[in-house]
Amino acid sequence: MAADLTEFIDELPLVDHHVHGATAHDLSRRAFEELITESDRPVPAWMTTFDSQLGHAILRHCAPELGLDPHASPEEYLARRARLGADEVNRRLLGASGVEHYLLETGYRGEEILGPGGMAEVTGVPVDEVVRLEQVAEQVAASGCGAGAFARRFAEALWERTRTARGLKTVVAYRHGLDFDPSRPSAAEVTEAAGRWLGERETAPSDEPPEGIEGGTRDGTETGADGGSGRRPDRRLGLVQDAAPATAAEPGRRGWRLTDPVLLRHLIWTGLDRGLPLQFHTGFGDPDVDLRRADPLLLRGLIERAEPTGVPIMLLHCYPYVRNAGHLAHAYPAVHLDVGLGVTHTGARAAALVGQSLEVAPFAKLLFSSDAWGPAELHHLGARLWRRALARVLGWFVAEGEWSAGQAARVAAMVGAGNARRVYELTAPRP
Amino acid sequence: MAADLTEFIDELPLVDHHVHGATAHDLSRRAFEELITESDRPVPAWMTTFDSQLGHAILRHCAPELGLDPHASPEEYLARRARLGADEVNRRLLGASGVEHYLLETGYRGEEILGPGGMAEVTGVPVDEVVRLEQVAEQVAASGCGAGAFARRFAEALWERTRTARGLKTVVAYRHGLDFDPSRPSAAEVTEAAGRWLGERETAPSDEPPEGIEGGTRDGTETGADGGSGRRPDRRLGLVQDAAPATAAEPGRRGWRLTDPVLLRHLIWTGLDRGLPLQFHTGFGDPDVDLRRADPLLLRGLIERAEPTGVPIMLLHCYPYVRNAGHLAHAYPAVHLDVGLGVTHTGARAAALVGQSLEVAPFAKLLFSSDAWGPAELHHLGARLWRRALARVLGWFVAEGEWSAGQAARVAAMVGAGNARRVYELTAPRP
Amino acid sequence: MAADLTEFIDELPLVDHHVHGATAHDLSRRAFEELITESDRPVPAWMTTFDSQLGHAILRHCAPELGLDPHASPEEYLARRARLGADEVNRRLLGASGVEHYLLETGYRGEEILGPGGMAEVTGVPVDEVVRLEQVAEQVAASGCGAGAFARRFAEALWERTRTARGLKTVVAYRHGLDFDPSRPSAAEVTEAAGRWLGERETAPSDEPPEGIEGGTRDGTETGADGGSGRRPDRRLGLVQDAAPATAAEPGRRGWRLTDPVLLRHLIWTGLDRGLPLQFHTGFGDPDVDLRRADPLLLRGLIERAEPTGVPIMLLHCYPYVRNAGHLAHAYPAVHLDVGLGVTHTGARAAALVGQSLEVAPFAKLLFSSDAWGPAELHHLGARLWRRALARVLGWFVAEGEWSAGQAARVAAMVGAGNARRVYELTAPRP
Repeated sequence: MAADLTEFIDELPLVDHHVHGATAHDLSRRAFEELITESDRPVPAWMTTFDSQLGHAILRHCAPELGLDPHASPEEYLARRARLGADEVNRRLLGASGVEHYLLETGYRGEEILGPGGMAEVTGVPVDEVVRLEQVAEQVAASGCGAGAFARRFAEALWERTRTARGLKTVVAYRHGLDFDPSRPSAAEVTEAAGRWLGERETAPSDEPPEGIEGGTRDGTETGADGGSGRRPDRRLGLVQDAAPATAAEPGRRGWRLTDPVLLRHLIWTGLDRGLPLQFHTGFGDPDVDLRRADPLLLRGLIERAEPTGVPIMLLHCYPYVRNAGHLAHAYPAVHLDVGLGVTHTGARAAALVGQSLEVAPFAKLLFSSDAWGPAELHHLGARLWRRALARVLGWFVAEGEWSAGQAARVAAMVGAGNARRVYELTAPRP
Repeated sequence: MAADLTEFIDELPLVDHHVHGATAHDLSRRAFEELITESDRPVPAWMTTFDSQLGHAILRHCAPELGLDPHASPEEYLARRARLGADEVNRRLLGASGVEHYLLETGYRGEEILGPGGMAEVTGVPVDEVVRLEQVAEQVAASGCGAGAFARRFAEALWERTRTARGLKTVVAYRHGLDFDPSRPSAAEVTEAAGRWLGERETAPSDEPPEGIEGGTRDGTETGADGGSGRRPDRRLGLVQDAAPATAAEPGRRGWRLTDPVLLRHLIWTGLDRGLPLQFHTGFGDPDVDLRRADPLLLRGLIERAEPTGVPIMLLHCYPYVRNAGHLAHAYPAVHLDVGLGVTHTGARAAALVGQSLEVAPFAKLLFSSDAWGPAELHHLGARLWRRALARVLGWFVAEGEWSAGQAARVAAMVGAGNARRVYELTAPRP
Repeated sequence: MAADLTEFIDELPLVDHHVHGATAHDLSRRAFEELITESDRPVPAWMTTFDSQLGHAILRHCAPELGLDPHASPEEYLARRARLGADEVNRRLLGASGVEHYLLETGYRGEEILGPGGMAEVTGVPVDEVVRLEQVAEQVAASGCGAGAFARRFAEALWERTRTARGLKTVVAYRHGLDFDPSRPSAAEVTEAAGRWLGERETAPSDEPPEGIEGGTRDGTETGADGGSGRRPDRRLGLVQDAAPATAAEPGRRGWRLTDPVLLRHLIWTGLDRGLPLQFHTGFGDPDVDLRRADPLLLRGLIERAEPTGVPIMLLHCYPYVRNAGHLAHAYPAVHLDVGLGVTHTGARAAALVGQSLEVAPFAKLLFSSDAWGPAELHHLGARLWRRALARVLGWFVAEGEWSAGQAARVAAMVGAGNARRVYELTAPRP
């Protein structure tokens, strides 16, 4: 029965409710190593990022997909990866992940990362979009906008941009922290804050950005204030286009990185008006995040104020605050959570996270995500490691006589796909 | 030997040092579902609270007590429950829990919940009382009391009310948070705060309560500002008397919900004067609790100031702050803890909590509680799940060669009953 | 293969990168009991500190080293310990720990505790020193120093004192909390703060110390403001010299306990100038520590500001914030961590901590320490329990097919010794 349950979970079609595109580029060793860590610092000469749970998981689970034995060496793995080429690697790793529907957060869409169309083409499954609030606001700013028009212009842009989107995302955890004033700012406050933001930007010389503003744009219309997980764009560009320094890709002017807490709140409240499920990055991430200020419990005030809207609040990732997130999901009908990203980076330990998510959170409130960005190994492992962890946790419940196998399979199907289909109103999969 | 240890723990007589009454009423499905969650929000139509660890545990462990197979369906379970009737259900579930002494927190004693006499009658074992400080204060206020007399009147009422009580309880975690000023307020501060509280109440029209005050009273003498675990009384009444809306049970005036931090501190310090073990709700609970402000570490200042009194400080439940509570129990002789409530709601995962409680806390500082309120399933599972979790954790220590079986049995007996007998000065059980 | 891995880890030579001296004195039962807890309160009459994970671990693992069966009684154990005498006990317990290099934190060097020379003599392995910043500053103050000269005098003393040292240590977590302003104080601020500190001390009568100052000195040159783990010196002296009250050992004047946050920051920044790896006590410890203010996440600001120095930041112990520390080690190249002290006090549960340390922290960032002080049981168990916990965690990874046995052995060797050799620039062990 444990074997049956494991097989059931291995073959379960998944909805990945928060993911980014895979890279279509080949990657040097340095680029690959820097993309399998959340750190944006250079990897010190005395270490390799393969010496991590994620590194070990790549060698264990991705190597066989590329035709190698499990536990290959990093050198063997990267040589095989280079020989096969990015397209074939993507085809194999994405194809073997068993994901049947992607909700792609497209906060950053350069040539190096596949967009919804590219992902759909490679994987052959539906790909819907999740729109990042901050990116829309930064595009409004970049297009030229007065302070008094900002709120209207942002709302118009958001509605236009999300006509077919399935959800919204905010990176307020990176830009300010989750400890923001949960009340809705007044129109006057928004105009005043927009004036500060837009005015500062207008008067700042292009080569002397305000402190902390490091983002750049790759072209005139797209502002890439940071990457998929909040990474700084100069880093990501630099990594993927290994030979070219980040600055070479920048057109000489700075991005509109939005960090003003009044405006960030305004985006969130406008997002609640829009009514699509609203995703919050919480917990573990790159060094931009102050982990103390990324505890989902800090969202309690907003969650309570947002209850009348009925908008689903999606707490992403949550490591190491999984139990705190579970409490919120228990207390408030709107709150859901996943343990993505943490599962990928904890590898052989991922069952510890999945286990905590199966404590006080109602089972209808749990979802699957990978939060993968770039190397298809992250997409593959997000699913693979989650399946293995879930099979261990649920298998243990069954083996100990606490749950029936039928209950375990049913909960696995809810968490893997059913809950996401309900929340995001996705159509049923093709037979 | 593992089987012997499991059997020993299964048959261990327990002292439940923090519990509320069982309901003597039959329950509709809606009422039952709402009573097996800490959330006070309506259960959304797209989910059932049976899809939770607690729900699965009911179907696994309570179903056989009612004559069904383990893992019955919710429909089967509730049908059988209805057929047997509340009295028989209580007799079976409470009887099979193996509790030999209850310390009943009687913050709310309506007809729907058994009081000490009723619980003693159903179970045939001793039931002693734990008195909630806030309830006593609210009764003093409701009886008519001037600000200048409040401190004296409260002390008199507390001493009178606790003549045979075994302990005191505070829900300051719900009413304010544990981040209160730990120093004792001066007499003048208390009088001033009492003036604000009593004055506000007197001038507030009955249909325009101050913000946040939602509680009501069921009769002229009892103030039910909230329920057993801090729940709002309107909710609890509504749930149990399923057909009758909450307001129908209210006599048309509002309760004296005490939330003033100066008065809450005053109650605690008067409680320390009284000298009975003082229980603090900490951690997980209903949405009224801000979990960030329910971390027991916030009590450090009070614990240090209270050391000269020698009063035992009982940290209740503590999820997910079990390790923090363990640190306090390690550092300070007066501090004890339990993992009740969390065990009930984490079900098959309860061993994770019990394991954390057996880290840095001295074994003489750990107690058992269920924190059950209402359905006897909660009383039953509080004990049953705790036994199973403890047997797993201690059994693993023994199997790994770290502990002897004799050490394990001895610690189980300390935590299950011996420590509570010492702290609350309970007489030995009847042979 | 699991057996092979366990044997490999059992025999792995370790570098203990944060440890204190063993006591060369025999210990009464009371003294022994008080030294196997972090609490500085008297042990209540109704409990014994043997009723703890550490107590059980002593009876399980140290008893056989003294010729007893595992799980001996406390009485048997202490009788055998007394018969053998402290020298023989030290020889056996230290010898069997398998530590091949000690980095001894010498913040307190009385006759009762072995210094580097004594430890090297008993163990026959290299012993290098880690110098406590606060002790050096307090020695400067005790030697007579004007406020204006303090910064220079402290720097001179630090360089002189650390000519052969391998690292620095700060107990700012005990003296203030990790929530200090991370910026470097100006010279004027340091002089002003030094004036307050030195002036207060000069004017305070010897029998009326400022509030909170309890430390004393044992002689004119050494200030023992607290013990190895931040313990108050009166306690430690009292415990070890069981017959003599603490005050009898004090020469009649009070110590220079440094708690000023400006000066504590100045010490840290001067320590960063010195350039040796800088150890921070974080997490669990004696009651002096406010655990809420000992979360390593509070160091994020300092870590970022210190990045240009390249100085390794060593987060010690971290319980229960192991995952938070792991995030910092993941994000910042300079940050390392260990789970010492927590392993010792969680005994049979230590695998839970070691498991958490092997989540998001890169494996090149993990080290081993015991943080032992006094009874050689703590030195022995720091190593023994860590080996057993690591073998369980890694053995499980291998048994589940997630890691190869070779990967597990390699990571064990990195964490047990290799990483410490790299960080502290230790020479290779003798063949």
